[in-house]
Amino acid sequence: MKLSTKTLIGCSLLAPATVFAKERPNIVFFLIDDMGWMDSSVAYGEEVYPNNMRYNTPNMARLAEEGVLLTNAYACPVSTPTRTSLLTGVNAAHSHITNWTSTMRDTPSDATGGAVAMAQSGVSVDVRGRFSRPEWNLNGMSPTEGVENTFCATPLPQLLKDAGYFTIHVGKAHWASAGTPGASPYNMGYVVNVTGNVAGMPRSYMSEDNYGNTAEKWNMLAVQNMTEYYGTGLHLTEALTREALKTLDYPVRHHQPFYLYFAHYATHTPIQRDPRFVQKYLDAGMDEGQARYASMVEGVDKSLGDLMTYLREHNLDENTIIIFMTDNGGNAENKSKGGVRFMHNLPLRNGKGSCYEGGIRVPLMVKWNGRVAPGTRVNTPVICEDLFPTILEMAGVKSYEVRQSVDGKSLVDLVTKGSRLASKAKAKGEISSQKEANAFVVDESISGIDPERALIFHYPHQWKPYDLEDIDYLSAVRKGDWKLVYRMRSGTLELYNLRTDIGEQHNVASEYPQVVKSLAAELGGQLRSWQSPMPTYRDTGKRVPLPDEL
Amino acid sequence: MKLSTKTLIGCSLLAPATVFAKERPNIVFFLIDDMGWMDSSVAYGEEVYPNNMRYNTPNMARLAEEGVLLTNAYACPVSTPTRTSLLTGVNAAHSHITNWTSTMRDTPSDATGGAVAMAQSGVSVDVRGRFSRPEWNLNGMSPTEGVENTFCATPLPQLLKDAGYFTIHVGKAHWASAGTPGASPYNMGYVVNVTGNVAGMPRSYMSEDNYGNTAEKWNMLAVQNMTEYYGTGLHLTEALTREALKTLDYPVRHHQPFYLYFAHYATHTPIQRDPRFVQKYLDAGMDEGQARYASMVEGVDKSLGDLMTYLREHNLDENTIIIFMTDNGGNAENKSKGGVRFMHNLPLRNGKGSCYEGGIRVPLMVKWNGRVAPGTRVNTPVICEDLFPTILEMAGVKSYEVRQSVDGKSLVDLVTKGSRLASKAKAKGEISSQKEANAFVVDESISGIDPERALIFHYPHQWKPYDLEDIDYLSAVRKGDWKLVYRMRSGTLELYNLRTDIGEQHNVASEYPQVVKSLAAELGGQLRSWQSPMPTYRDTGKRVPLPDEL
Repeated sequence: MKLSTKTLIGCSLLAPATVFAKERPNIVFFLIDDMGWMDSSVAYGEEVYPNNMRYNTPNMARLAEEGVLLTNAYACPVSTPTRTSLLTGVNAAHSHITNWTSTMRDTPSDATGGAVAMAQSGVSVDVRGRFSRPEWNLNGMSPTEGVENTFCATPLPQLLKDAGYFTIHVGKAHWASAGTPGASPYNMGYVVNVTGNVAGMPRSYMSEDNYGNTAEKWNMLAVQNMTEYYGTGLHLTEALTREALKTLDYPVRHHQPFYLYFAHYATHTPIQRDPRFVQKYLDAGMDEGQARYASMVEGVDKSLGDLMTYLREHNLDENTIIIFMTDNGGNAENKSKGGVRFMHNLPLRNGKGSCYEGGIRVPLMVKWNGRVAPGTRVNTPVICEDLFPTILEMAGVKSYEVRQSVDGKSLVDLVTKGSRLASKAKAKGEISSQKEANAFVVDESISGIDPERALIFHYPHQWKPYDLEDIDYLSAVRKGDWKLVYRMRSGTLELYNLRTDIGEQHNVASEYPQVVKSLAAELGGQLRSWQSPMPTYRDTGKRVPLPDEL
Repeated sequence: MKLSTKTLIGCSLLAPATVFAKERPNIVFFLIDDMGWMDSSVAYGEEVYPNNMRYNTPNMARLAEEGVLLTNAYACPVSTPTRTSLLTGVNAAHSHITNWTSTMRDTPSDATGGAVAMAQSGVSVDVRGRFSRPEWNLNGMSPTEGVENTFCATPLPQLLKDAGYFTIHVGKAHWASAGTPGASPYNMGYVVNVTGNVAGMPRSYMSEDNYGNTAEKWNMLAVQNMTEYYGTGLHLTEALTREALKTLDYPVRHHQPFYLYFAHYATHTPIQRDPRFVQKYLDAGMDEGQARYASMVEGVDKSLGDLMTYLREHNLDENTIIIFMTDNGGNAENKSKGGVRFMHNLPLRNGKGSCYEGGIRVPLMVKWNGRVAPGTRVNTPVICEDLFPTILEMAGVKSYEVRQSVDGKSLVDLVTKGSRLASKAKAKGEISSQKEANAFVVDESISGIDPERALIFHYPHQWKPYDLEDIDYLSAVRKGDWKLVYRMRSGTLELYNLRTDIGEQHNVASEYPQVVKSLAAELGGQLRSWQSPMPTYRDTGKRVPLPDEL
């Protein structure tokens, strides 16, 4: 079997190699919710697809010009697993946090297993398919031992705080359920927290609704600690941005390095107009849902721009790293987004919840002045748990003790090597023009990350109280250009070549039986060694087979 | 007219005068809600009264032994005016924040004026007495200009933060209404905020109720940002204590001076059992309401003890000032506290809401190692707005610019002179025994605060949707031993000599007409110069007379 991926790095500008910051850098992790790979005017793929044309995100484009774009970046199919992987460096199949956590403790979010399902939305359902839900860490992540059904680990912000960072949480946390320590960012090592708790979405983005804090329709998703903005007309995205900038005042004045984890609730449901931006999308002919969604995307783009402006105005631009990412693929299933269901992430297949590319491939950019050559592209596949060691390395935290066994690999070499190599080539006279710099290609063998490593995705759950065949009970492994998808319901394996078929439309399993066998062994072996959650047959109580047991 | 008050300072232990801290001290402001002057086992008066015997507060007693007890300390009759006076140094009659702020903007909390009254509790009433409500700053305090019906001022924590303090807010804020900047501690200069917002009380203290975050009975008083404790069995007082101690981690590790404003929701209604302590009070024969309340008092006492233990264990004991205070008198009107209505603060008259002593006289203690002689008592009258310049002086903030005209006077000389003078006397051989130290008396002329200054109290409101003659529409002035009370409804003036009649049972106005005239002129003149809010007659629209216009 020959698997290969080229790592291409083109440098549109060469940063001087001497601008290595002597101070520890500030780090901003800017995380968007449910914003898909196609949902911006930045093309994360090799080309601009029609969906890219729908959006207006000048600040994301500016970030791409100033930083590195990772075009093969992955997250988990749903929110909590990605967020806890970022916190811990551990793959979701390994931490056993494979689904989103309910607001209330000991309440499975799986849409199966009886009346407890869908507890968050208050809807009782009784989906009685062939499978019973797996045992998983349904209370999420815990920084302390002894909390039932949690994955206990040392969280990233705790390590950063221990290293002297002023750690700030703004927005959505969603790592754990109420009644457990993981519910609070203050237990994760954050010095400051604005709004973060157990909620995975806001009850409302509208100040007119007090962001959900109205008695007649209140639930645990009402956004907390934002009373100052009630009735002010400010969309939640704007209100959170103002809060985030306020939190920087103390560390900036005291010259303390900060880590700002700014996790927007947007663009998660409910899909509500951002009044600042919606009209132009309606004028452009979008339907109401599409226009609302596009306005929410532009809202987070504006937030990113405001943050970048703040950094520049406070002379923090040079020494502040910005990492931009989203937590899973775009939601293509929810009708409130308008358009045609499951078509939102084209050319990618399906969307949020799915182990097909539409559910797991996400935007990722890193701006790091003096270390990352502006306009760089890296095509090596990377995954959310990589950010844990990456951020620690960026912060200069070289040795640390953690409870967990970290799966992620630092991306620092990968994202900085373009600058280093291009600088060397320029010094040697090998690059003399901007055109040559743009075309500069770096071979994958010096990437610091093995482009052939296996990336594991695992969703052994039913997502909704109705069957979604391209979402429920899937596992997948990506290795180089190959992608193997295991469909547990049908007990079948599919193989795709992502280089030629990014849309996963052509199952070539029958043509490459040895690749199938090899990847099934790799996926099955990993899930077995991690003792990953698997559903059981409702009638026999037996575990559903692993992909290499079919 | 001869007015006189003795300032008595007795030193049970003499602190060495050399222990003046070179570092800026940490400051903890420990504020209890609605806990009356009698509601602890510490006697704040000259003697132990029967009500003191009901409570078990060993940590407050320990604080009294280690610090100074101010036996004639005053706050406003209700919560928000005291809290905004602490923030601004301005008397409530001067800031025009004379009543508590509703959770929602532009909503008078006055129990008069039609259907908007009692908006916080969701009850619409239409009390149509002779008076219409006054114009006051019903949206509370604002740190920024241009917010309607607010008092704009520079808040204390902002000055401390500007001076390098790590400023922390834990618990109840209640300075302003939703939709205004004053709603958020982050706008007041706090670096960290846990739970503080527009709520003046918690919907519930019980984790079983998620502190009020349950759909069937939720309202804006549900406690925010405490999801980690839902269903854990922890009373809110304990949960807040754990949060407060967590927030100290960053400044302590970074050796940064901190200001911790720890404002418990307890012992405000709802009166709910603290399960750790309630049984012994039931066993002692208290009724259910009394026992619940006593258990809540012991809960905050335990919190104080935990804080003191933390400080000692982290070697912060010597350099941390603790200020202990409550925000108004004990609530004697609410039936859920058990006992006999309006008798809870005996020997003081009435309770929360009232300008009689039961509503405004509050516990106040200051522990300041090396500066305050342990076990000291100061009898000079002081008032809540004095804490603003006091804390700034403690923090070494000598010059500062503020928007407001500060009414309060620093108490630093007052509370430290006992140590200084006693030390001098000891050096001169004038004090040779502990007994002599305890009996050491300092004349008021060297107190730093004029014991004859006039302290102004003003409540031009109807508190409840039913008439309370000893609460509604009262103003008062204390000057030395004298207290003048102006009852607007009846248009009458009462005079009491607090030295001989702390219970305000013997109106001696007819015996001292010149004192009445003098104090009425002082009270009226002050209210006039401050353009303080006054009710109007509903039928004529005219302002109710000031006390010197009768």
